[in-house]
Amino acid sequence: MRDVAIIGVGMNKKWGELWEMSMRDIFVEAALDAIDNAGVDHVDSMYVGCMSGGLFTGQEHIGALMADYLGQCPVPATRVESACASGGAAVRAGFMEVASGMSDIVLVGGVEKMNDVSGDDATYALATASDQEWEAFSGVTFPGLYAMMAVAHMHSYGTTIEQLAAVAVKNHANGSKNPRAQFPMKITVDTVLSSVLVADPLHILDCSPITDGAAAVILCPADRAKQLAKNAPVQILASTQASDTIAYHSRADLTAIESTAKAAAAAYKMSGKRPDQIDLFEVHDCFTIAEIMVMEALGLVEKGKGGPAVEAGETAIGASIPINASGGLKSKGHPVGATGVAQIVEVVEQLRGASGERQVAGARVGLTQNMGGTGASSVVHILEVM
Amino acid sequence: MRDVAIIGVGMNKKWGELWEMSMRDIFVEAALDAIDNAGVDHVDSMYVGCMSGGLFTGQEHIGALMADYLGQCPVPATRVESACASGGAAVRAGFMEVASGMSDIVLVGGVEKMNDVSGDDATYALATASDQEWEAFSGVTFPGLYAMMAVAHMHSYGTTIEQLAAVAVKNHANGSKNPRAQFPMKITVDTVLSSVLVADPLHILDCSPITDGAAAVILCPADRAKQLAKNAPVQILASTQASDTIAYHSRADLTAIESTAKAAAAAYKMSGKRPDQIDLFEVHDCFTIAEIMVMEALGLVEKGKGGPAVEAGETAIGASIPINASGGLKSKGHPVGATGVAQIVEVVEQLRGASGERQVAGARVGLTQNMGGTGASSVVHILEVM
Repeated sequence: MRDVAIIGVGMNKKWGELWEMSMRDIFVEAALDAIDNAGVDHVDSMYVGCMSGGLFTGQEHIGALMADYLGQCPVPATRVESACASGGAAVRAGFMEVASGMSDIVLVGGVEKMNDVSGDDATYALATASDQEWEAFSGVTFPGLYAMMAVAHMHSYGTTIEQLAAVAVKNHANGSKNPRAQFPMKITVDTVLSSVLVADPLHILDCSPITDGAAAVILCPADRAKQLAKNAPVQILASTQASDTIAYHSRADLTAIESTAKAAAAAYKMSGKRPDQIDLFEVHDCFTIAEIMVMEALGLVEKGKGGPAVEAGETAIGASIPINASGGLKSKGHPVGATGVAQIVEVVEQLRGASGERQVAGARVGLTQNMGGTGASSVVHILEVM
Repeated sequence: MRDVAIIGVGMNKKWGELWEMSMRDIFVEAALDAIDNAGVDHVDSMYVGCMSGGLFTGQEHIGALMADYLGQCPVPATRVESACASGGAAVRAGFMEVASGMSDIVLVGGVEKMNDVSGDDATYALATASDQEWEAFSGVTFPGLYAMMAVAHMHSYGTTIEQLAAVAVKNHANGSKNPRAQFPMKITVDTVLSSVLVADPLHILDCSPITDGAAAVILCPADRAKQLAKNAPVQILASTQASDTIAYHSRADLTAIESTAKAAAAAYKMSGKRPDQIDLFEVHDCFTIAEIMVMEALGLVEKGKGGPAVEAGETAIGASIPINASGGLKSKGHPVGATGVAQIVEVVEQLRGASGERQVAGARVGLTQNMGGTGASSVVHILEVM
């Protein structure tokens, strides 16, 4: 298996409600940014992570569409879907295409255009990541599912609503230093707790937003990276994925995200890195409780200790385990198919020392964790600057 | 790059209107058939080709769902989409996972449950494979697009409606020997020409049907295939893909399917096989005109000679270039995400000499061609019995 490196990263100038751009415009802006950042003049193959082009925009066949609008026909172009882990799964597909020797320069993008449908329709589209026959069918939507996860965690470990709010406060503080963030305003625990209740105990400021956006990376064989790249290349030490039951109610442990724990264990083994050798983490904080459960699944804190660790400031930039320096899904935004790719964009920029005000000092190794649904799929990448 | 073999293939007992089965049931039936056919007791990873779970069934996150219902969690499980070429693209993704060395035993399935929505909604869902902003938006659907392709071909090369009908007649004759075919009845040129006109010059018997169905294959490294397999293994000599403009009106040549021509050229090179060394072809006859244009793109006949070749019987089982011995999409059915996988199932069975009444005598090498939209993406595989 060939080693694989990332030589270019790109995103839209700003994520948010991009009314003047269609899905293809959004993708092309991010992809051109990545191509320019890499300094390559062509790509050999493309992958596009996208959760639900059909329900959000009436468009499937998204790989070929994006190859066309990026001027890259006739390269192979495939769309990858794993709900909100679509972006991470797309990077893993691109990783294997380069690792296998099939292609040398692969563009992996992720995109979602979520604001062109009503809020009700967006909620319906997102609910297709849950079990349609047993969860969505009975009327539960994602805030409801994550609210159940929060209640279970509070019941088992004494996690508090203030600790949930502390995740949002920290991520908005980080996002306030990210020019691309959709919601860069700073907030306080009081702001969160006095915001409207969406699904008890989750307030609206515990929830990631509806976002239009895209992100892209350029991959190549590691042994060609230094020759090809115009910016510091970053090696992909591990690219792993795991699945779990589609329905939350089928899990053996309602307070755990087992797919993340399993993908992380495989990634630590593949990379030869322990959690304490990793300098920063971009994780899937679709709701504040998710970040706490993911910290535990990654082995960054003991089971049940996620809430207190966040509240104590241990996950801030400059602290021992910096999590979501980008602002996370919560502040940066969560265009579902793009998120997994954007996490990698953030880590690459951090490892290059190019993150400005939100730089994690001296970062050399980073981890991304991207998940779909209530954790029916998780993708983990570990990256190291070359 | 490791060589890759197919050691198991499976399908539903019969494709059609499977009212008593949900999408997950349909997939699991085919996947268990493939696992049993391979004789393996586990898989390391899964891919699922599916075009539009969201619009057809309100379900995305299809990889994890199928891993769950197949009892395979926590294996990585990813859905791949390239419109009606989703199945072929999924096989190519699985091929690269094995070729790279990331996994040894990979299950690739394809599935679509199309009958649970109205005909209008199915037509809308299928139209998302075209350019939503320039084609679907203006009201054209796939029968209309392929009707334009037929008219262009008739104008340039004198192709006749009787030649189009001859494709359907031949494929139904083949399908009448396939117990899994949705529409196994034999038809005549007169039956086609007297059937209802859908989009001039295409009659309803020029069009493939709306189908519920799934298919699956099991891949492994070629050097382990003979040891693992309980039935004759088949090597994947080439797995190639190409893209073209999403919109039909953007093509330089309206009578050609360039993505197929380019994927085929790459496949002939990768495999070292010329078309005259290939014993049978399963191609994407979503409409009768498609089979004629694909024959030309694959280089099986000269440009413009596809219609006369079909009419002269050159593509029947037992003739010089047997095409769609399975009955093709036309008679076997076309569950869009499953078709590319099912084409490979047919070729593997043929190369094993296990195709009963429709066996192509002495077949050792076969080719599959699967495409999305009006040819914005094409996937070609060349297989040889080991």
